[in-house]
Amino acid sequence: MSEIIRVTVWGEYLHERQDEKVRAIYPQGMHTTIAEGIREYLGESVVVRTATLEQPEHGLTEDVLASTDVLTWWGHIGHHLVADEIVDRVHDRVLSGMGLVVLHSGHWSKLFTRLMGTTCSLRWRDDDREVVWTINPGHPIARGVPPVFIIPEQEMYGEYFDIPQPDELVFLSSFRGGEVFRSGCCFVRGQGRIFYFSPGHETYPVYYQPEVRRIIANAVQWVYAPPAPRYATSTCIHSPLGWFEQEA
Amino acid sequence: MSEIIRVTVWGEYLHERQDEKVRAIYPQGMHTTIAEGIREYLGESVVVRTATLEQPEHGLTEDVLASTDVLTWWGHIGHHLVADEIVDRVHDRVLSGMGLVVLHSGHWSKLFTRLMGTTCSLRWRDDDREVVWTINPGHPIARGVPPVFIIPEQEMYGEYFDIPQPDELVFLSSFRGGEVFRSGCCFVRGQGRIFYFSPGHETYPVYYQPEVRRIIANAVQWVYAPPAPRYATSTCIHSPLGWFEQEA
Amino acid sequence: MSEIIRVTVWGEYLHERQDEKVRAIYPQGMHTTIAEGIREYLGESVVVRTATLEQPEHGLTEDVLASTDVLTWWGHIGHHLVADEIVDRVHDRVLSGMGLVVLHSGHWSKLFTRLMGTTCSLRWRDDDREVVWTINPGHPIARGVPPVFIIPEQEMYGEYFDIPQPDELVFLSSFRGGEVFRSGCCFVRGQGRIFYFSPGHETYPVYYQPEVRRIIANAVQWVYAPPAPRYATSTCIHSPLGWFEQEA
Amino acid sequence: MSEIIRVTVWGEYLHERQDEKVRAIYPQGMHTTIAEGIREYLGESVVVRTATLEQPEHGLTEDVLASTDVLTWWGHIGHHLVADEIVDRVHDRVLSGMGLVVLHSGHWSKLFTRLMGTTCSLRWRDDDREVVWTINPGHPIARGVPPVFIIPEQEMYGEYFDIPQPDELVFLSSFRGGEVFRSGCCFVRGQGRIFYFSPGHETYPVYYQPEVRRIIANAVQWVYAPPAPRYATSTCIHSPLGWFEQEA
Repeated sequence: MSEIIRVTVWGEYLHERQDEKVRAIYPQGMHTTIAEGIREYLGESVVVRTATLEQPEHGLTEDVLASTDVLTWWGHIGHHLVADEIVDRVHDRVLSGMGLVVLHSGHWSKLFTRLMGTTCSLRWRDDDREVVWTINPGHPIARGVPPVFIIPEQEMYGEYFDIPQPDELVFLSSFRGGEVFRSGCCFVRGQGRIFYFSPGHETYPVYYQPEVRRIIANAVQWVYAPPAPRYATSTCIHSPLGWFEQEA
Repeated sequence: MSEIIRVTVWGEYLHERQDEKVRAIYPQGMHTTIAEGIREYLGESVVVRTATLEQPEHGLTEDVLASTDVLTWWGHIGHHLVADEIVDRVHDRVLSGMGLVVLHSGHWSKLFTRLMGTTCSLRWRDDDREVVWTINPGHPIARGVPPVFIIPEQEMYGEYFDIPQPDELVFLSSFRGGEVFRSGCCFVRGQGRIFYFSPGHETYPVYYQPEVRRIIANAVQWVYAPPAPRYATSTCIHSPLGWFEQEA
Repeated sequence: MSEIIRVTVWGEYLHERQDEKVRAIYPQGMHTTIAEGIREYLGESVVVRTATLEQPEHGLTEDVLASTDVLTWWGHIGHHLVADEIVDRVHDRVLSGMGLVVLHSGHWSKLFTRLMGTTCSLRWRDDDREVVWTINPGHPIARGVPPVFIIPEQEMYGEYFDIPQPDELVFLSSFRGGEVFRSGCCFVRGQGRIFYFSPGHETYPVYYQPEVRRIIANAVQWVYAPPAPRYATSTCIHSPLGWFEQEA
Repeated sequence: MSEIIRVTVWGEYLHERQDEKVRAIYPQGMHTTIAEGIREYLGESVVVRTATLEQPEHGLTEDVLASTDVLTWWGHIGHHLVADEIVDRVHDRVLSGMGLVVLHSGHWSKLFTRLMGTTCSLRWRDDDREVVWTINPGHPIARGVPPVFIIPEQEMYGEYFDIPQPDELVFLSSFRGGEVFRSGCCFVRGQGRIFYFSPGHETYPVYYQPEVRRIIANAVQWVYAPPAPRYATSTCIHSPLGWFEQEA
C-alpha cells in the first residue's frame, strides 16, 4: 500500500462563520483542522484538499470526485442545502469504491442516511464528557489508539442510534449521564468502505485531540481502496450460459 | 408467540395479465398463489390478504399498513410505477417494526434498494436449474428445509449481487452455468426484519413447490414482531441529564 | 411455535452454600430463582428443571441433555471443577441445536470459552450501578424490554471483552465508573443459538428484577430450536457426484 | 503500512514425501511453493520462512512465533500429530495479534477448530472443477482478483461447512456437481485476524495459479497487524473506580 491516497475533506462551513464561539476554535473552519490532522499523521502518503457547501457544486464536481480516493464529511445545520444531484453523485462514487469517513453530525446527512437506509437518528445533549473505548483492538482503525481515552468536553450522542448493524464495531462511548453510543462503526456498501466516527462537536476543540486525529487518519487508510473497475451498475447484467468460461 | 400474524401479500400483477404463459401458471396472479402457500403452512396462526399495483394507493393505504404485521413483495416490470409516497410509507413502516419478505425480482424495487442503500443489481439468465443449499441449519427460516433441494426450472440470479453484507445468510444457490448466489438473506433495518429470497421467476411454477412455500412461511414467522412503540423517528431526541432515571 | 420448550437451568451452587450474604438473597440457590423467573414469564410453554455441579455428572447426563432444548448456565468459582467430558458432551449438544443461555460469570466457563475460541476475559469491579440499553429494539430478545433500565446494584463488567464479534448485539451497558460493556450478545455455533447476558452477580438480587427475568425468558425462546437432524459431525462427508440428485 | 511483514509458512509436509504424485507437483513441498507465491506478489515488503511438522516443536518455537507477524497453515493427514502445547502456543499468539491464513484442509486442524469453536467439517469429493466468485469486491483481499476465475482441477469442498458466520465473506465457490462453498472467509479472534481460503488440494498444482497466489498474498497483508500490547489475557482485570482517569 505505497499508493498516495487522495483525500477530500468536506465541511459544511456554516457554524464557523455564523457563531463566534465556533470561529474561535476553528478560525479556518473545521475542514481545515481535520485536513491538518490527516496530514499530521499520514504525511507524504496522502494529498489532502478541502471542499465546502458554498462552492459551486459544493466543491464536489465530477472532476474532484474522480480524483478523490477518500472523502470525509462533516455537516449539520445545512444538510438540507446539499443538492440531491450531488448526493446522487457522491453516493454513486462510494458504491464504486471511494472511501467515506462520516463525522459526528454527518450521521444525519442525506448521503449517510441514503447509504444506511434508516433514519440514523439518535439522542443528544450538550455539555458532557465522552469516554471512548476500543472494543476491537486488532482493527486497523484502532492502531496506536489506547484501550480507553477521554474527550473532556463533548456533546452526548446516545442510543438508540438507528443504523443497520455495523459490519465491524470498533469503538463504544459512554457519557456522564450514563448513556452509551456505538461511536466507531464500519460499513461496506457496494465496493465502498465507510467509517462513522461520532466525536466532533463544533463548540469543542475535538479535532485537535491526538487520539481523534489518529483515529481519523487510520480510518482514511482503512476506507481507502485503489481505483478498480466498477462491479455493479444500475443495470443488471444478462449473462449467457458459459459467459465466464469464454471470457477467461 | 401465539399471536395471529396479519400478512399482506403484495403483487405487481402485470405479467399474469399480459403474458399467457404466466397466466397459465398463475391464473389468479402470483400473489394469490403465494398467499395460499402461506396459509397452507401457517394455518390459523395467520390471516392473509393481498394487494396489487393497480389498486388505489397500490392497495397499501395507511389503514392496510397499520394492520399489517408482515408484508411480502413481488414486483418486476412495474417497479417504476410504484408511487414514491407509497414507498416512503412502507419504508417507514418497516423501520417501525413491520416485517418484510422480498421475493425474486423484488430485489430491484424502490423499496428494497432504499432499505439497502445499494444498487441491488445482479447477473441473470433464463432457463436454468437452481440448487438451494442450507448453510445456516439452526436458523428458524431453515426449519423443516432439507440440506439441499432442487428447483427444476428457474431463472439464474448470479453474483455479484450488490447488497450490504446480510446480517445472517441462510441459503446459497448454484446454477448449471456455474454461477452462485446468496439466495436467502436476513437484514435488520430499524425495528424491522427483512428476508430476501431469490427463487420465484414468473414463468415457472416455483411458488407451488413445497420447499419454497415452507421457506416463505418460515420467513413470515421470522420477520414478524408484535406491534411495539417506535424507537427512532425522523427527529433526534434531546435528552437532558438524568432523563432516564426520572422516567424509570 | 406452540411446542413446549424443555429448559434445564444449570447452577454451580457453591456461593449460595458457602457465603451467608449470597444465601440470604438466594436461599434455594440462584438456579431455583432463575428457573422461577423463566416459569413466571413463559408459563405453560416451558417445563423447567435444574441441575447443579455436585450432582453425578453435574446433573447433565446423556438422558438429561437429550431431553433438554435449552440450557442456561451460571458458574463462577467452580469452572475448573466441571469435568472435561461433560463439557465435551454439552458442547456437542449445542452444535447439534440445543439452545444455550450463558449468564454473568459464565463468560469464563470452559463451555463458553470453548464455543467462542477466545479468552472471554474482561474488566470487573464490585459495587456499581448498571444501566442497560436496548440497541436492537426489533430483536425478539428485546420484546417488552424498555429502551433503558437500571440495575441498582451490580458488579461492573467492562470492555475490552475478549469475544468474537457477536452475530447480533442486543444490549449495551454502562457503569458509574464510565465503563461500557456488550451485555447482551447473540452467537450461532453449528445448529445452536447462544445468548450471553452479563447481569447477575451473586451478591445482588438481580435475578428477581422483572426486566432481567423477561430478557432471560425471551432468550430462552430465541435460542430454542425444535429437535432436528444433525448436519455436521466430527466426520467430513464424502459426497459422490450427483449424490443429492439421487437422494432428492 | 511500510513495515516489513515477517511471514512463516507452515506445512505438514507429509503427502509430498509419501506420495509420488504430490511430489511431482511440489518437489520441495507445498510450503516452499506457497512461500514463493507470497514473495512473488509482495516482494521486499515481506520476509518469508517456512516451518514443518517434523522439525523440533514443529518449527514453531517461542522465538519463531515471537518474530512471526503472519502464519499460514496447511495440514491434512497429520492434524493429530501436532502437539497440543504447540497448538496452545499458536492459539495464544493469534489472540495476541498474529495474523493467520488457513489453507484448504487446514480447516480441520486443531488450531482452526479451536479458534472457531465448531467442528469445521464439510462435504468433499475428488476430481472436480472449482469456480471462484468474488462477492465482496471492495475487500482488500479481492484487490486485483477478477470477478470470477476457474481452478481447472480441484477437490470439491461443499456445504454445509460447520463454521461460525464469518465476519466478512469474500469468495464463494461452485463445483460441477452443483455444490457451493464459502471459500474465502474472514474472522477476527482476539486481536488476531484470520483468513480461511479453501482452494489448494495437494494433488493439483493450485498454489502455482496466479489468482490463488494473489489472494494468499492479499490475505497476508490483510491479516497483518504491527506488534502491539496484548489486551486480553487469561486473567480478568480488576479495575478500581476511576482507574482510567488516573492512568490517562
